[in-house]
Amino acid sequence: MSQAAPISPDWIAVDWGTSNLRAFAMDAGGTVLGEATSDKGMSSLAPNEFEPVLRALIADWTVPNPCTVIACGMVGSRQGWQEAPYRGVPCSAKSDAPVRVSNVGDDLHVWLISGIKQPDPADVMRGEETQIAGFLALNPDWDGVLCLPGTHCKWVHVSAGEIVSFRTFMTGELFDAISTGTVLRHSLNGTDMDESAFLNAASETLSRPEKFTTNLFSLRAADLLNGQSAATARAKLSGALIGMELAAAKPYWLGQNVALIGSSTLCTLYQQALAQQGVDATLSDAASVTRAGLCATYKALTGKS
Amino acid sequence: MSQAAPISPDWIAVDWGTSNLRAFAMDAGGTVLGEATSDKGMSSLAPNEFEPVLRALIADWTVPNPCTVIACGMVGSRQGWQEAPYRGVPCSAKSDAPVRVSNVGDDLHVWLISGIKQPDPADVMRGEETQIAGFLALNPDWDGVLCLPGTHCKWVHVSAGEIVSFRTFMTGELFDAISTGTVLRHSLNGTDMDESAFLNAASETLSRPEKFTTNLFSLRAADLLNGQSAATARAKLSGALIGMELAAAKPYWLGQNVALIGSSTLCTLYQQALAQQGVDATLSDAASVTRAGLCATYKALTGKS
Repeated sequence: MSQAAPISPDWIAVDWGTSNLRAFAMDAGGTVLGEATSDKGMSSLAPNEFEPVLRALIADWTVPNPCTVIACGMVGSRQGWQEAPYRGVPCSAKSDAPVRVSNVGDDLHVWLISGIKQPDPADVMRGEETQIAGFLALNPDWDGVLCLPGTHCKWVHVSAGEIVSFRTFMTGELFDAISTGTVLRHSLNGTDMDESAFLNAASETLSRPEKFTTNLFSLRAADLLNGQSAATARAKLSGALIGMELAAAKPYWLGQNVALIGSSTLCTLYQQALAQQGVDATLSDAASVTRAGLCATYKALTGKS
Repeated sequence: MSQAAPISPDWIAVDWGTSNLRAFAMDAGGTVLGEATSDKGMSSLAPNEFEPVLRALIADWTVPNPCTVIACGMVGSRQGWQEAPYRGVPCSAKSDAPVRVSNVGDDLHVWLISGIKQPDPADVMRGEETQIAGFLALNPDWDGVLCLPGTHCKWVHVSAGEIVSFRTFMTGELFDAISTGTVLRHSLNGTDMDESAFLNAASETLSRPEKFTTNLFSLRAADLLNGQSAATARAKLSGALIGMELAAAKPYWLGQNVALIGSSTLCTLYQQALAQQGVDATLSDAASVTRAGLCATYKALTGKS
């Protein structure tokens, strides 16, 4: 076994979601020196388990004492390590006032980034605020609408460095629940996707969103009667869900400057569906902007710019 | 233990669905002499298991030899005992040409009622055709639209004794998948339902169906931010799903004679939502019309009227 060079970060950036944990060994300038991941997400941990899980994950790194840790995601929810209360919109898009975790050994200074809430329509985000802050750190003075596809897709109106309003769509979670928990599971297996079927379904649902639940059953019937392929059925389900989302999010994207943040596969679907409506959206990788957001918070906290 | 009078049916009516089996000991005039139920639904059985399961279920009854058995439901699907091919719309609403099961002992004459298919929009039903036939046997010369709420709700246009067209909505199955398989499970527990929240959600979704997936997430956010009750959240989910269904089914119910067939709890919700749109729908119990449908097939088969 070869001896790897020791990893000696200046601080640690953490993305701690519902089902996964990812820690980055960072230098003060924002370079990633190392990475460690775990499946010990927030939902599997009691409050007193977060500290030992984090210590075990970074045990191989040579960290300063005290070591600054900045974490975003569900780790800061009421069911997480400690609640980092929501900030309310409208609010600064910068996450420069994280909440310090109490009851941690003196050698670790752990900070949690707050989520953001909106009273009406009732809505919340936790984790995406860090991606938004990171995107703006990478694209200063950017104004427009951010779309963050995923389990709970967010549309966020950003103006003059503030988050003005946002809406969440359960698009990704509905895709999973419908494709695994209903009779459609028999007709949707696999991962292939037929692009033209996707675009047709997105555009049809955008104009006739009310037909969603009946179009769903047609996916099953078209399989039984005509042997419709799973790739076509998956594309139609995805198109219907994204089409319904675009129908409701129209005030967000129509005539706006739109940027997508997320996985490239999923963002490409949104990009194609938006292009069909005449909107050219840019793409940014979620992991990069998350790290940029954690770095921005670190800089704000330590006064290093 | 008292000695019960022996049950001696003239024939046996069977409702054999995906997850349940229900057999009725019938006299020739259509009176129910006894009932036996089992959780051995179609989905848990291989083709060669249907006969022994049925024999075991009716073992206590003294049946004629040969004994006529008439069955409806998923028992006649491709994954069932034997496929009873779909009839295509437009077709008679009577199910008077069931399919005889081959390879059964001579003492049982088992007949399966065919489902109905529609090529465009692609749609199928299996089991509901028997309820429709039963409803028309109980209400001769009835014209109008039947709505059969349930896992897969059907809207059926009936005219001059024919099924003209129909559409299926995955309303019930979506309610189950969303309330158990998504983050909303934390906000929807229990069985209570707030009637005014239901009616508001139904009417709002009927006018703005595209907001469905974003309104869903608001149910979670309203719980986190305002402690919204589960009874309100359940009512809003149910109202949103039924409202979206009514939006798409409008050509079926607008200005039509509408009859609901199903469980009284669920049918009452549809009745209230329809009343809000100015439609007075009647209610019929699903079990009664199913038996009436099986009786009608028996009479057609045996020439007894």
